[in-house]
Amino acid sequence: MSVTTTPGSAIPDFAAVIPAGGVGSRLWPLSRPESPKFLLDLLGTGKTMLQDTVDRLAPIAGRTMVVTGAAHRDAVVAQVPGLDPESVLAEPSPRDSMAAIALAAAVLEHRHGPLVMGSFAADHVIRKVAAFDDAVRAAIEVARLGKVVTIGIAPTGPSSAYGYIESGAALTDAAYEVTAFTEKPDATTAQTFLETGRYVWNAGMFVTRTDVLLSHLARLQPTLEAGVRTIAAAWDTPERDAVMAQTWPSLTKIAIDHAIAEPVAAEGGVAVVPADLDWYDVGDFDSLASLLAPGDNGAIVVGRSAVTGAHNSDGALVVGGDKAVVVIGVPDVIVIDTPDALLVTTRSAAQDVKIASSLAQS
Amino acid sequence: MSVTTTPGSAIPDFAAVIPAGGVGSRLWPLSRPESPKFLLDLLGTGKTMLQDTVDRLAPIAGRTMVVTGAAHRDAVVAQVPGLDPESVLAEPSPRDSMAAIALAAAVLEHRHGPLVMGSFAADHVIRKVAAFDDAVRAAIEVARLGKVVTIGIAPTGPSSAYGYIESGAALTDAAYEVTAFTEKPDATTAQTFLETGRYVWNAGMFVTRTDVLLSHLARLQPTLEAGVRTIAAAWDTPERDAVMAQTWPSLTKIAIDHAIAEPVAAEGGVAVVPADLDWYDVGDFDSLASLLAPGDNGAIVVGRSAVTGAHNSDGALVVGGDKAVVVIGVPDVIVIDTPDALLVTTRSAAQDVKIASSLAQS
Repeated sequence: MSVTTTPGSAIPDFAAVIPAGGVGSRLWPLSRPESPKFLLDLLGTGKTMLQDTVDRLAPIAGRTMVVTGAAHRDAVVAQVPGLDPESVLAEPSPRDSMAAIALAAAVLEHRHGPLVMGSFAADHVIRKVAAFDDAVRAAIEVARLGKVVTIGIAPTGPSSAYGYIESGAALTDAAYEVTAFTEKPDATTAQTFLETGRYVWNAGMFVTRTDVLLSHLARLQPTLEAGVRTIAAAWDTPERDAVMAQTWPSLTKIAIDHAIAEPVAAEGGVAVVPADLDWYDVGDFDSLASLLAPGDNGAIVVGRSAVTGAHNSDGALVVGGDKAVVVIGVPDVIVIDTPDALLVTTRSAAQDVKIASSLAQS
Repeated sequence: MSVTTTPGSAIPDFAAVIPAGGVGSRLWPLSRPESPKFLLDLLGTGKTMLQDTVDRLAPIAGRTMVVTGAAHRDAVVAQVPGLDPESVLAEPSPRDSMAAIALAAAVLEHRHGPLVMGSFAADHVIRKVAAFDDAVRAAIEVARLGKVVTIGIAPTGPSSAYGYIESGAALTDAAYEVTAFTEKPDATTAQTFLETGRYVWNAGMFVTRTDVLLSHLARLQPTLEAGVRTIAAAWDTPERDAVMAQTWPSLTKIAIDHAIAEPVAAEGGVAVVPADLDWYDVGDFDSLASLLAPGDNGAIVVGRSAVTGAHNSDGALVVGGDKAVVVIGVPDVIVIDTPDALLVTTRSAAQDVKIASSLAQS
């Protein structure tokens, strides 16, 4: 736990863990159970969100591990050819974030002994990559001291879409004690949070030593800790599938926020590294559109091979498809063309897209 | 010219002439130069507008003739298998309605001697078929007397989308003298027209004896009359193509309204049979939508083989396509899905669709 690292180079005893789950139902028909958000190149950059996440962590992490649903294991391996397939852990069923992250921690520790791990969602957008790099390195140094460290996003407004982290006393140049995690606030509460200057958004990024995480878990969720230890011991043996089949379904379904972050924060064991990352959780087509620049005709075009015509349709978002699309007189319209399904909505109705897949089956 | 006819049976010496032209640019991407409006089943009835027009006239007409562009001759023959291919006249280039109708008159008269003909657009919707049948039969009787007879549509409102016909003294139970044809009026003028009770819409339906039409033409547009007589004499000979190639391009481009209807009306030679036909010139997607009933989810669906889901989108019109379409939060949206082009607009922007094909090529 005292490896010397050169600034800017990968840290041998730091493992990036990427839980890759969640469908993204408000991004239908792009995002589906069989093609979830993290496997998509939503921004049309040429890289999927998972690939982008892996690439963002590669300069820092000595090793990378992805935890995903069994149905997506092959796709993950195919999308990240640089990753050892043994570093892709497949969950037979979703059991929430704590089980996924704890499994990664236990397998990493069983294979390599204790090390520092950082957990980062596979489907977030971070545009200030250098700032992210700095924040993760700072978090690692604090994690070495035994803290659970979260990277908090400097708010750009009083959003009620995110949970907030309240910070207290400074621990280092970069890190502060965490006083509390809060649920998503209403707009008024969010405004009061911002005015204190002590709140940052919770982006679910946690950096901690595997032994610290697992010992917290042993106290707070003992059956979960025992379960992932049992699975980890069998992981690289012929017994993996049998043990997994027996043990995994019994693990407590709980988010890491509730299992670890909140109770350990109450004990004074959590730190936060605030960071201005230009970070986005692209949850719907409106937020996707807000990240992209329109063309000369006012329309935002992503991942299309054919012409897109637009007239009196500023702010339109047209995604996918290999046929000509023309939008006329529908500002902020959203047109998502896929081989088997077409969605037409508007940016103001983007939240309602969560019901789209059920409408497509009726 | 004094054939006795049984009410309800076809009239042997009455020929229905159907000029089938016009692209319908506000109905893109359904309607294109290669698949014009009259070849489409716009209403999803199982019959194209041309087929519907032919079928509507079949109970009345002893013979039917279609005049269309050379590019559409084969499609017309294929769509109307009951029609003798020699009754489909192909224009090598469009020369407006007078040339098309005069050519039909000249060919009919050259083949069969003088008879009564009626000209009816191939792309209008008429829902009161029995009233149409009655009006045409009444018009034929008046035409036999030497009049050019138009069937005028009883207005349902002060539309400024149509030209109006002003009627004068009664000629028969069903027909009135025509005082004047007017261009499309503004809304205020249209309102004053309606208040007189003497105006009907001009739907471009003309019933007249071929010899009457051609003699008017000989006075008013002598080179046009001479041209179509020359072509008609060669039509059923090996010289057709050569004569057509030489003569057709020289014919005056003029609408029948300006060439015949207006000047002959000024001479007292035109009659009108007013009729309540539930008639529509479906020029754009808004007028198409107004003719169709929505389903339980509020959306109007035409010609689709896959599911159409709609939420908060009353009045939406979804046409074509073999993939699931879901519309959310876009009332009155128009979605037209074709194999190579997709249009998304709204009913209020339906007029602007005329620029869509140019946008699709940019």
